[in-house]
Amino acid sequence: MTEIPDTMFATILKHGGYSGTMTGPVIENAGDWLAEAELPVPQPGPGQVLIRLRTASVNPSDLHFIKGEYGQPRVKGAAAGFEGCGDVVVTGKGAEALQGQRVAFVAAGSGAWAEYVVTQMQMCIPLRPDISDDDGAAQIVNPLTAMAMVDMAKEAGDAFVLSAATSQLGKLMCSLGRDLGLKPIALVRRAEAVDMLKGLGAAEVLVTTDTDVAQKFSELSAKLKPRMFLDAVMDQLSEQIFCAMPNRARWVCYGKLGSEAPTLTQTGQLIFMGKQIEGFWLTQWMMSTPPADRMRVVAEVQARFADGRWKTDVSEQLTLRNLIPNLADALKKSDGKVIITP
Amino acid sequence: MTEIPDTMFATILKHGGYSGTMTGPVIENAGDWLAEAELPVPQPGPGQVLIRLRTASVNPSDLHFIKGEYGQPRVKGAAAGFEGCGDVVVTGKGAEALQGQRVAFVAAGSGAWAEYVVTQMQMCIPLRPDISDDDGAAQIVNPLTAMAMVDMAKEAGDAFVLSAATSQLGKLMCSLGRDLGLKPIALVRRAEAVDMLKGLGAAEVLVTTDTDVAQKFSELSAKLKPRMFLDAVMDQLSEQIFCAMPNRARWVCYGKLGSEAPTLTQTGQLIFMGKQIEGFWLTQWMMSTPPADRMRVVAEVQARFADGRWKTDVSEQLTLRNLIPNLADALKKSDGKVIITP
Repeated sequence: MTEIPDTMFATILKHGGYSGTMTGPVIENAGDWLAEAELPVPQPGPGQVLIRLRTASVNPSDLHFIKGEYGQPRVKGAAAGFEGCGDVVVTGKGAEALQGQRVAFVAAGSGAWAEYVVTQMQMCIPLRPDISDDDGAAQIVNPLTAMAMVDMAKEAGDAFVLSAATSQLGKLMCSLGRDLGLKPIALVRRAEAVDMLKGLGAAEVLVTTDTDVAQKFSELSAKLKPRMFLDAVMDQLSEQIFCAMPNRARWVCYGKLGSEAPTLTQTGQLIFMGKQIEGFWLTQWMMSTPPADRMRVVAEVQARFADGRWKTDVSEQLTLRNLIPNLADALKKSDGKVIITP
Repeated sequence: MTEIPDTMFATILKHGGYSGTMTGPVIENAGDWLAEAELPVPQPGPGQVLIRLRTASVNPSDLHFIKGEYGQPRVKGAAAGFEGCGDVVVTGKGAEALQGQRVAFVAAGSGAWAEYVVTQMQMCIPLRPDISDDDGAAQIVNPLTAMAMVDMAKEAGDAFVLSAATSQLGKLMCSLGRDLGLKPIALVRRAEAVDMLKGLGAAEVLVTTDTDVAQKFSELSAKLKPRMFLDAVMDQLSEQIFCAMPNRARWVCYGKLGSEAPTLTQTGQLIFMGKQIEGFWLTQWMMSTPPADRMRVVAEVQARFADGRWKTDVSEQLTLRNLIPNLADALKKSDGKVIITP
């Protein structure tokens, strides 16, 4: 039996509730939103487990959340962080099967940016030994989102459009799209990323800073007829892309990297062309997808990480104790993931 | 056998194709878009009929169309007008059953603002004798749209929101909503219309020029939980209404009376609240709804006009020959319909 301390080091939220702002997943100074604290180690209730952290990841949703711009209210003083990997050291009633297992998890009871985390057993995925701790820290949020959204794209047609394609999630979707026989049309900010994305599986790559990107997309759209736009940017160019897509196209928004709010310039796109605008949220997908389907998707995700088809690009390793002063700079470095260790 | 002349008087389109503008269903001078012409009387092909016009109506969609802002391209020199009522005087092969009948029709072969009109037999509805020619001229576009959209609203919940509620279509939807046991929440521009709409069936009426209309709507929305917004305006207030609706709300756009283009200020409404934005087009509904369902709806519409539950408010009667100089003024008069006779 491992000895569990009474208190732990944690990175906590400085503010509670929602901020009412819409400034996007960018931070100038993590200290504006986060603080260090020594908290009591949480106790797992029935159906819950206590996990000793190995690695946690930083997702755009974490940044939205700490700023009070996410779909759930903040609890001031609670640990931040949605996703990580660690060892189950204590189990609540009914969760005994997970005792001692190394798991990937989504934090549902307390935050992941802490030495210990409590979450529901349903939010834990036991990890195959051939998955690294770094890959384990980013095993759920991005991979499941990629699988679920590319699945939707497949039902809508042969080609699909994705923005912010150099993000970890974007790269997963390019390779998954190609593997499923689809044609991913990737939108990126920097021309340097074109070859990398084509290598990963993008059928076409457009650079959003090109002055004629809208015209180039119109030509591609007429040829490839993409009917699904998986968009993490949601700016005015997104709207132009949507308007240039063929009838019955769906603009599915899952993030808000763009700081500009898009204006709907062509009502006729909705009325006469049968297009629609909607959102995707993994939490909703997890709640509404039958367990058997979730398990199938989870197994497929692990197989992809285990055999190297997918991997987590790590841009920087930080520890819980040097996270706050270094997080903002680490996030500016590249499109890789920041991984946190205790 | 009625004698059919070789030529006919018609109001024709001055321009072809699309204009590329989005200025809405308002005209300053009908002569900018329409001209008078003597055209050959069209010949019905197989499955078509020739109708001698009794009455035609002017819908917002007609104005969108003549300006090149509708979902179908204009044909320069062809007669304008989508909807009317008249007598079938010649039938093509297979359409003999309609010979001599008085029908409501949607013009699918040539325009309705002409002495004679050719259309598909499927676009004709034989009229009961107790329906007047004025009601017959507005029997399809508005009533079927109202029935189809309120049906959608009913599936979404107990309450729904509609904008431009003093339009003919808005009034039909208020009364139909009440008859189906729903709570229509009506948005209107003028406070004078409040009592009239409550009398027709609106459960609540909000005046969009009130400075605190958004706040008042938020309170109503929390109480009545409307999940369907049937919107013919599509301006920034529409977006505020949508954002104040509960989760899973649908913003269904079927017109564009507002000249302002709405900006999507809250991406989280789509992502976290499962809301969506879409359109409704009667043409698409007609094509995708099984004939038996269409017939049931058509019979219900005629029953409502026959027993007086619904009627067409006529704001002005014009003739084909005095239409162009008088149309713009007639449309400014009130929210009633302009009816055209030969």
